[in-house]
Amino acid sequence: MRVSRLLLVTLRDDPAEAEIPSHKLLLRGGYIRRISSGIYAYLPLLWRVLQKISTIVRQEMDATGALETLLPQLQPADLWERSGRWAGYTAGEGIMFHLTDRQGRELGLGPTHEEVITALAADLLRSYRQLPVNLYQIQTKFRDEIRPRFGLMRGREFIMKDAYSFHADEDCLRQTYAAMDGAYRRIFQRCGLRAVAVEADSGAIGGSASQEFMVTAEAGEDLILTSADGRYAANQERAVSRPSVALPLAAAPRAGGVGDRLSTPGQTTIEQLCSAHGFDPSQLVKVLLLLARFADGQFQPLLISLRGDQQLNDVKLANAVSARLSGAHGALLSIDPLTADLVRSERLPLDLSEIPFGYLGPDLADQTLAPDPSHRSDTAGVAPPTTPAVQLTRSFLRLSDATAAELEAFVCGANAADHHRVGASWAGLGLQPESLDLRAAQSGDRCLHDPDQCLQAARGIEVGHIFQLGRKYSEAMEARFTNESGVDEPLWMGCYGIGVSRLAQAAVEQHHDADGICWPVAIAPFAVIVVIANTQEAIQVELAESLYAELTAAGLDVLLDDRTERAGVKFKDADLIGIPWRVVVGRGAAAAQVELVRRAGREKLELAASDVRATLEAEIGREIAGATLVA
Amino acid sequence: MRVSRLLLVTLRDDPAEAEIPSHKLLLRGGYIRRISSGIYAYLPLLWRVLQKISTIVRQEMDATGALETLLPQLQPADLWERSGRWAGYTAGEGIMFHLTDRQGRELGLGPTHEEVITALAADLLRSYRQLPVNLYQIQTKFRDEIRPRFGLMRGREFIMKDAYSFHADEDCLRQTYAAMDGAYRRIFQRCGLRAVAVEADSGAIGGSASQEFMVTAEAGEDLILTSADGRYAANQERAVSRPSVALPLAAAPRAGGVGDRLSTPGQTTIEQLCSAHGFDPSQLVKVLLLLARFADGQFQPLLISLRGDQQLNDVKLANAVSARLSGAHGALLSIDPLTADLVRSERLPLDLSEIPFGYLGPDLADQTLAPDPSHRSDTAGVAPPTTPAVQLTRSFLRLSDATAAELEAFVCGANAADHHRVGASWAGLGLQPESLDLRAAQSGDRCLHDPDQCLQAARGIEVGHIFQLGRKYSEAMEARFTNESGVDEPLWMGCYGIGVSRLAQAAVEQHHDADGICWPVAIAPFAVIVVIANTQEAIQVELAESLYAELTAAGLDVLLDDRTERAGVKFKDADLIGIPWRVVVGRGAAAAQVELVRRAGREKLELAASDVRATLEAEIGREIAGATLVA
Repeated sequence: MRVSRLLLVTLRDDPAEAEIPSHKLLLRGGYIRRISSGIYAYLPLLWRVLQKISTIVRQEMDATGALETLLPQLQPADLWERSGRWAGYTAGEGIMFHLTDRQGRELGLGPTHEEVITALAADLLRSYRQLPVNLYQIQTKFRDEIRPRFGLMRGREFIMKDAYSFHADEDCLRQTYAAMDGAYRRIFQRCGLRAVAVEADSGAIGGSASQEFMVTAEAGEDLILTSADGRYAANQERAVSRPSVALPLAAAPRAGGVGDRLSTPGQTTIEQLCSAHGFDPSQLVKVLLLLARFADGQFQPLLISLRGDQQLNDVKLANAVSARLSGAHGALLSIDPLTADLVRSERLPLDLSEIPFGYLGPDLADQTLAPDPSHRSDTAGVAPPTTPAVQLTRSFLRLSDATAAELEAFVCGANAADHHRVGASWAGLGLQPESLDLRAAQSGDRCLHDPDQCLQAARGIEVGHIFQLGRKYSEAMEARFTNESGVDEPLWMGCYGIGVSRLAQAAVEQHHDADGICWPVAIAPFAVIVVIANTQEAIQVELAESLYAELTAAGLDVLLDDRTERAGVKFKDADLIGIPWRVVVGRGAAAAQVELVRRAGREKLELAASDVRATLEAEIGREIAGATLVA
Repeated sequence: MRVSRLLLVTLRDDPAEAEIPSHKLLLRGGYIRRISSGIYAYLPLLWRVLQKISTIVRQEMDATGALETLLPQLQPADLWERSGRWAGYTAGEGIMFHLTDRQGRELGLGPTHEEVITALAADLLRSYRQLPVNLYQIQTKFRDEIRPRFGLMRGREFIMKDAYSFHADEDCLRQTYAAMDGAYRRIFQRCGLRAVAVEADSGAIGGSASQEFMVTAEAGEDLILTSADGRYAANQERAVSRPSVALPLAAAPRAGGVGDRLSTPGQTTIEQLCSAHGFDPSQLVKVLLLLARFADGQFQPLLISLRGDQQLNDVKLANAVSARLSGAHGALLSIDPLTADLVRSERLPLDLSEIPFGYLGPDLADQTLAPDPSHRSDTAGVAPPTTPAVQLTRSFLRLSDATAAELEAFVCGANAADHHRVGASWAGLGLQPESLDLRAAQSGDRCLHDPDQCLQAARGIEVGHIFQLGRKYSEAMEARFTNESGVDEPLWMGCYGIGVSRLAQAAVEQHHDADGICWPVAIAPFAVIVVIANTQEAIQVELAESLYAELTAAGLDVLLDDRTERAGVKFKDADLIGIPWRVVVGRGAAAAQVELVRRAGREKLELAASDVRATLEAEIGREIAGATLVA
């Protein structure tokens, strides 16, 4: 390909819309252009990268026996209603674009394909003899992100490889899950990426086990916690650790007491309370008042207890709340602090004026959830006809993190303004808290598997996620098969995703320098660029053309920079777009000498034009072979 | 690939949802499954076909220097508002799915990409030095079809290859258009399709010239008219012809007369009138009362005159009306008969009770478009705030087909119930009709290029369409470049589409028999199927496995039917899914003899297993080479 025919438009300056290096470089290098918020045109250079990544993905998926297919992007609402996910994905913070067609039927734009594939499996799979089967596709997906950003990292339209496997038993599911884990490691390695496999939360997809693959990079949106011995790695959403040991309260409490009342005017934060009275945060129980909203319109107030030095992990809380209430009320749509603003915006029949914010104790009475007297009694349940009826539970769901539940005596709010209690105990408050893991593990925490190991934080870009789904979807959608004993049962399922377009940008994030991108050769749009230093010199043009023809004939992806620009401009562009190898045909052309430059390390080599092909084949072959070795 | 791992589920009976052979066979053969109206899952067998077609399309597009890219499917409304197509594509019969995102912004799901690519061109293209450039993509597209049907033929989600070229002048556009014409002919031929290039209407896409490529097949939705000498072929929407010569009226009319009044009670059709009075239909002028609706809310009554033996061509009429009024009123949304029902449903302030339907003459007075007295005068223009204000023109746009306009004397309605006029003339009626082509050419009509040639009708499936767009989009969206003289001007554009998924089904429509599909080898999911007649026989299994390995190693796409089914079931399935070559390993295996069967012609050959590879390579090579020769 000749640069003059490539529609190469590079930008000298960083575009204002981009924050992180990879986003800036993809825009500056003419790889992408923004069409709308979170929506990009993939220009020819990026398309070549995406095709190379897709080829590697296909090869590794096919090698495991997976079958490529293509499922619809437009998905009928009734399939999602059968799995119970329509409301959660379209209402509230739901991220599924949805529309009504000319027949008045609702359709969603697929962010994922569990519903479609499970319906298909119910149609196609009848017998254990057809199992296992693993179907995959490489396809554009859609998410109506709240904050689209960072270019292809968090877009509203993006390319995914997603696969769905079906099994006769859980053991077989685990085998395919392991095969996918292996395939994913090979894929990322062949793409030239340093990726870490971490334990992950299964989130809205669900299922029993899941693992993410993170490309480590400063600009990553995910926080991952790893042990130095490499034996533990998890997404922060999921990470577990040993909490620090709590300091005992100096004043020995009476056994089973409610604590001594302490006047604490204006001391509504942990910091204020500790600094005024010399408490350690680990001696406190802090209480959060939240409100959970469900797909069926139900609102459930939550009262969450944590040790004063611990932070709430939102994902662990959402999982705990879902586990208790989603069976009755459908998908958990959101959890927000229960504030007067929320009461107003959701038009809840609730008066919070009796609640002593800043002074809450775990034993806050349900009666404080008093109806708003200004609200007519019939307004609860009245809502626009298209949304579910509003229902409010008037008793708290009380959940305690283990760090709080294990305290024998603690300081907590007195449920009265300007007062706390010192030396309170669970029994004294009349509570028997369940011991849950609701806290966020943090960098510096000691590891569960070895207390001598501490968690270290790193940032990562999620490029893959594999799930053991179990029977969640097959049960909901009645995708059943006849097992070897002739008995009908739901299929076992797994699902496996790779963010193909995100992976391309993650590669840039991991492989760039101040001058531009340094693509791993396996996914570079072109492996080699032959630059004619001065197109006025016939001898340079002639030698460059002959090298271009020779390298192309050898099967290498070669660019020829035949533009009439100055050599400096061409070198800058070659650096910016990140072609791994540059062959400069300049003054040495008369002596059939050229310069070979490796983009990533800047190594330069003067060599005879006749040696270029063999040198490049050897170097490129070495890099590809290195990346093909499985770690 | 082993059939046992292919997830092959074939159906014995024709599915009720399918009407035409190709749709039935794709469903029965396990190529597709319906997910929703006009929306299909592409199962692994079909995906292989689509990949093979895509590869041929890419090779031929790349050979012309076109660059592959990928544009967004979600397109912001404001781009379509800039081109003036948003209303036409979303309101009324508009076929664009559209939605509102969480920020309240409107987005459409791309049925085509002129807007996005023109916006991109405005950003990327500055100078004539960058031209010409031709960008293409292979991508899922969306149309909210009124009547989705025939499987992949008219779906709501489908795969297209679309390309858009940009030029410094019209001559260069014509060259690329010609290059695309050549590439398209090669693509269809390499795919093994008999396709005809026909003149076509440019429709909603616009532009000055366009050509469709039709796969001829009984089940085709398009009517095409061709001359036996092969020099003329056109879509019926666009076709032109010589009309038959009109019979002169027997009674010589007075020059410039209004005609003699004739009592014709109950004779409201051409047939009734001719049979009662012995007229020939070619002696009559029939008058159609229609109503055009525009994007800005304007309604325009139309009075269309045609010779009695001619039929109206809706597309020619729409083009004529658009040419006259779209400048003032935006896109033409629809043309419908002006009836009392329409007046009611559109809530038009109009009383049709004075209009003598069945007795209309071309001189029907504008005054007959009287306001409805029951309508309050202020209701015109009152409409829901989201739709444009309703405006009604109270004078006719009068258009006449040339066949009517050329009549010196004719029979027409008297604009009074139960009466016609005999011997009327245009001058006598006070009209000077413009001579337009509004009539439908028909099979049997004489050709313009040679009156000895008659048009013949055939049915076709549109699989490609190429357009010279000119500057329609670049002017509307200000995509400009600096020409060689340093002057700024709008880009010249062309666009070029191929229905990739439709092409796959069209191939089935053209290549099938009573037992199933007969794929052309170039796009068959597999070229060869090796069938083990009896998997209980170790010698058969062994020979089949060794042939499978040998053929696969030779680079052929081979299926091995290793299922424990009876041989008859396997043969039926192989016929149904249409694998071009079948190798049967049966009783002859002991003597290393196998049977080779060509699917399309049923030719059978007994041969030594050791000769299979060479024979297949030669046969397949011959078929591929034959299809690669350009017609």
